[in-house]
Amino acid sequence: MPQETPPAVLSRARYGKAEVRLLHVDRATPRHEITDLNVTVTLAGDMAATYLTGDNAGVLTTDAQKNTVYALARDGVRPVEAFALRLARHFVEVGSVDRAQVRIAEYGWRRIHAGGQPHPHSFERQAGTRIASACAHCDGRAEVTAGLDDLVLLKSTGSEFHGFLVDRYTTLVPTDDRILATAVAAQWRIDTMEADWAASFRGARAALAEAFAITHSLSLQQTLYAMGEAVLAARPEICEVRLSLPNKHHFLVDLGPFGLDNPGEVFYAADRPYGLIEGTVSRPGAPDGDPEHQW
Amino acid sequence: MPQETPPAVLSRARYGKAEVRLLHVDRATPRHEITDLNVTVTLAGDMAATYLTGDNAGVLTTDAQKNTVYALARDGVRPVEAFALRLARHFVEVGSVDRAQVRIAEYGWRRIHAGGQPHPHSFERQAGTRIASACAHCDGRAEVTAGLDDLVLLKSTGSEFHGFLVDRYTTLVPTDDRILATAVAAQWRIDTMEADWAASFRGARAALAEAFAITHSLSLQQTLYAMGEAVLAARPEICEVRLSLPNKHHFLVDLGPFGLDNPGEVFYAADRPYGLIEGTVSRPGAPDGDPEHQW
Amino acid sequence: MPQETPPAVLSRARYGKAEVRLLHVDRATPRHEITDLNVTVTLAGDMAATYLTGDNAGVLTTDAQKNTVYALARDGVRPVEAFALRLARHFVEVGSVDRAQVRIAEYGWRRIHAGGQPHPHSFERQAGTRIASACAHCDGRAEVTAGLDDLVLLKSTGSEFHGFLVDRYTTLVPTDDRILATAVAAQWRIDTMEADWAASFRGARAALAEAFAITHSLSLQQTLYAMGEAVLAARPEICEVRLSLPNKHHFLVDLGPFGLDNPGEVFYAADRPYGLIEGTVSRPGAPDGDPEHQW
Amino acid sequence: MPQETPPAVLSRARYGKAEVRLLHVDRATPRHEITDLNVTVTLAGDMAATYLTGDNAGVLTTDAQKNTVYALARDGVRPVEAFALRLARHFVEVGSVDRAQVRIAEYGWRRIHAGGQPHPHSFERQAGTRIASACAHCDGRAEVTAGLDDLVLLKSTGSEFHGFLVDRYTTLVPTDDRILATAVAAQWRIDTMEADWAASFRGARAALAEAFAITHSLSLQQTLYAMGEAVLAARPEICEVRLSLPNKHHFLVDLGPFGLDNPGEVFYAADRPYGLIEGTVSRPGAPDGDPEHQW
Repeated sequence: MPQETPPAVLSRARYGKAEVRLLHVDRATPRHEITDLNVTVTLAGDMAATYLTGDNAGVLTTDAQKNTVYALARDGVRPVEAFALRLARHFVEVGSVDRAQVRIAEYGWRRIHAGGQPHPHSFERQAGTRIASACAHCDGRAEVTAGLDDLVLLKSTGSEFHGFLVDRYTTLVPTDDRILATAVAAQWRIDTMEADWAASFRGARAALAEAFAITHSLSLQQTLYAMGEAVLAARPEICEVRLSLPNKHHFLVDLGPFGLDNPGEVFYAADRPYGLIEGTVSRPGAPDGDPEHQW
Repeated sequence: MPQETPPAVLSRARYGKAEVRLLHVDRATPRHEITDLNVTVTLAGDMAATYLTGDNAGVLTTDAQKNTVYALARDGVRPVEAFALRLARHFVEVGSVDRAQVRIAEYGWRRIHAGGQPHPHSFERQAGTRIASACAHCDGRAEVTAGLDDLVLLKSTGSEFHGFLVDRYTTLVPTDDRILATAVAAQWRIDTMEADWAASFRGARAALAEAFAITHSLSLQQTLYAMGEAVLAARPEICEVRLSLPNKHHFLVDLGPFGLDNPGEVFYAADRPYGLIEGTVSRPGAPDGDPEHQW
Repeated sequence: MPQETPPAVLSRARYGKAEVRLLHVDRATPRHEITDLNVTVTLAGDMAATYLTGDNAGVLTTDAQKNTVYALARDGVRPVEAFALRLARHFVEVGSVDRAQVRIAEYGWRRIHAGGQPHPHSFERQAGTRIASACAHCDGRAEVTAGLDDLVLLKSTGSEFHGFLVDRYTTLVPTDDRILATAVAAQWRIDTMEADWAASFRGARAALAEAFAITHSLSLQQTLYAMGEAVLAARPEICEVRLSLPNKHHFLVDLGPFGLDNPGEVFYAADRPYGLIEGTVSRPGAPDGDPEHQW
Repeated sequence: MPQETPPAVLSRARYGKAEVRLLHVDRATPRHEITDLNVTVTLAGDMAATYLTGDNAGVLTTDAQKNTVYALARDGVRPVEAFALRLARHFVEVGSVDRAQVRIAEYGWRRIHAGGQPHPHSFERQAGTRIASACAHCDGRAEVTAGLDDLVLLKSTGSEFHGFLVDRYTTLVPTDDRILATAVAAQWRIDTMEADWAASFRGARAALAEAFAITHSLSLQQTLYAMGEAVLAARPEICEVRLSLPNKHHFLVDLGPFGLDNPGEVFYAADRPYGLIEGTVSRPGAPDGDPEHQW
């Protein structure tokens, strides 16, 4: 008797708990340290039984995943790269899964100054988000990436854009002086499990901002590459940098109808549409990354 | 003299215009038809010259991409799958690019009723977003996907969750009656360029909602698979369905402290964290998809 | 001995619990009814002791306010105007407060159709939000308002704008045919505690949408007034309507540079800036509203 | 012949342009200064003709309002309080309006450091928003307020909450050590048109943050009052401070089920619901504010 062809197959599956919000307070001394995190866990592997039949015997509940994040935080959460890796390795040991990925967003805080001194337990939120992601496999392999999100940069000169292809729909006027602004989303792969994570992040972040500042820009594409190159030059442990740079357009307002000139002073900051420039800059000879790690 | 190893290489690059907002009014008859779109163009290929040197000779400006979206809209924008494909094919012909991807979100509207009749030119926005994406290569290959976003579904019974793995961090209580709610993000691959796009979308959407409704759920994973299977069963031109389903948790409120029972009537709708269940359901023997198409 | 002038006085104070998310399931029959609410409680009165000294003896904790919302929901939450009023009256009896205000947003759902029938316990979220607000005073006075939020309307013709004041900064070109689009935020005061709340809301909502549709618009201001007038005409229990209408601009795209005309077909939907038109339309002789009720 | 009662009256009307996004670059020296603004204009007065008949003769188009913001920016936009006042006074002279209100949000930027030096024309966005609002009347009266938005503060100890009213729905456990966190929205009225606006803002902002830090909190209400009092103490030109403080709850996670203690180290940061504490702190004998100024 011929077997029936199944009507459908499960070709890829993963599940987890997203956006576990966690504040950790280190009270080792009266000068508290706080760490403010948003943790997302993703487990992947052969999940046909669960998806096809509703048999949950292999399901580590997302509620337990949340509990695990809080429980393991009891031993400390800094640096976030190490915490992500510790969590990911924990999950591949527990579940009937092939791999676990843990992505953490860390929100920045600084101390409030009171009486001219940094306060021991009062803080003020800062802009920007630090990112860490770890992917661990049940065979012991692991990969860590770091990065940042929503680092908004702008230069008021030192940016040109001309010499571009002109097709029948091109009306843009070439310029040798424009505003360049972006909200950097960057992540980078670290070619070791033993980095000085804090120093690595600080160095990469500074390299990104400084390269943006000092590169005389001929295009946002060129600036992107310079930023990636600067990270690789600054930090030998980093082997690959992925950048996504929206071009936050600022258009010079035509004040002519009102009898006024506008020598690069008054701009309209547009919302949409926006250019979106993406690229990956790698160190030659870098080892291949983990194709299953979605960072 | 030996050549210096370059300090960095560009391993992946793409750029485009994101979120071109376009309203198209079809005035062929006094009973207008409107189509409300958000179009994102992405071009990819060998972009080393631009990124490394700032030579823009090969750059089709994102401003021209925006102009192109508006200009090609003059010939009509429905169905959106065809418009996405037409745009993508246009861009691979113009730019010095290997491939172009065009993703469109379409916002739904329905006619206002006035005097008991649907009004010929007045409309009211509806929930939910229809998605279309086309990827065209310079060698003529192309792929079209369709989908939807933010279809929020809820069932007030007919959902159980028990029999799951219990580890040391598991505290969840098994249940045989819970609220199941999600915001469906789904996209599917269509194995032809000649589909009846409107009928295909309507059928797939109805299949998703109906499968959610009639499946007695043992887990959101199982419901996901049933939804994907239903789409494949309903529409032969669809060969692969990708689903991402956040588990929008609703927790029964304990009214015991106030001397009240709560037989499944009063729930707290939580924001974060949330479960996130993902999976791909494919037709056996389906042709491989385009690995460069990011849908 | 002269008394010191206090350095500061508390001139106005209120506090409460915001955004209590509540899903109520009515299981009276197998055909469930769901009600999805976001409830905000605000208590006001003489709070000097609390604010100035930290004496909390008069503070009904916002946590208890949340509990109260859930506990009183056990007896049903429909119609939302009545639930808001019941909650507000409860709070003035408990706290040492002069008045309590309860504002509720209700999110709309409709049944999923499965097998051609509306499903008894599976639902799909709809656009738009219904609003109810009640303010109760400790002397027994109370006021109820209803309304809606985020009702997005658009007409593709039947809207002109010309004859406006021209100053030295006016460059707008008059038009006799433009897109008119807005996201209606409207609230109205109801001059009784005994209305048929469901019929009142349905009638007011229909009047707003229909007036938008059938009014040939000379300005969004004129349309606003027509919408308010229509609500008063449709529902005798309503005595005052407050409307806030953003002008969601849609600009005709100039396709001339590409050799194309654009007879009102292709528009750019802008985000910011936007016009914002506000107004209150009242029934002559309507009783004064409660000046403390912030709706 | 008796006159018909009009079916409706316009009891309150205003209109304007919201969210005009403006970047101003001061190029007086090679060390550029940038100012990043979001400007909202509101005009009010007798607008019956426009609203009731569609006669636009008295309407200053919102498009012209936008143009005016850009044109007047040509002469500089700092400090923002003065720019708001200049704009408001301009509008009451132009339109047939009784009063004009201009509200400005200013986004903060700081210089990128490159080579150890602050860069002359490259900037990085900072957290927090500065607010200014001016209301001008056609009779010459005017009022200016300043403020800030989204200043997120947290203290990891030094906050108690107990001694509160206990009703039948109170289940909160008193605590003598909790996390206190809020996102400050504050505005204050300035009793002169001749203030040193920059120094005034800096002083008020520092007073708010410092008072939050050094006040041992018995409730967020008490902290609110201390913050308002500190602003009045620090800046004699300020006569009234309005504060809106969401209580961003952080709940200690119970790690007991996992055999762990949790001595104030691991917290869950909740989204909704949240407490919302509001209050106004005034200088005794302060002149009355403008009741028409909506700040």
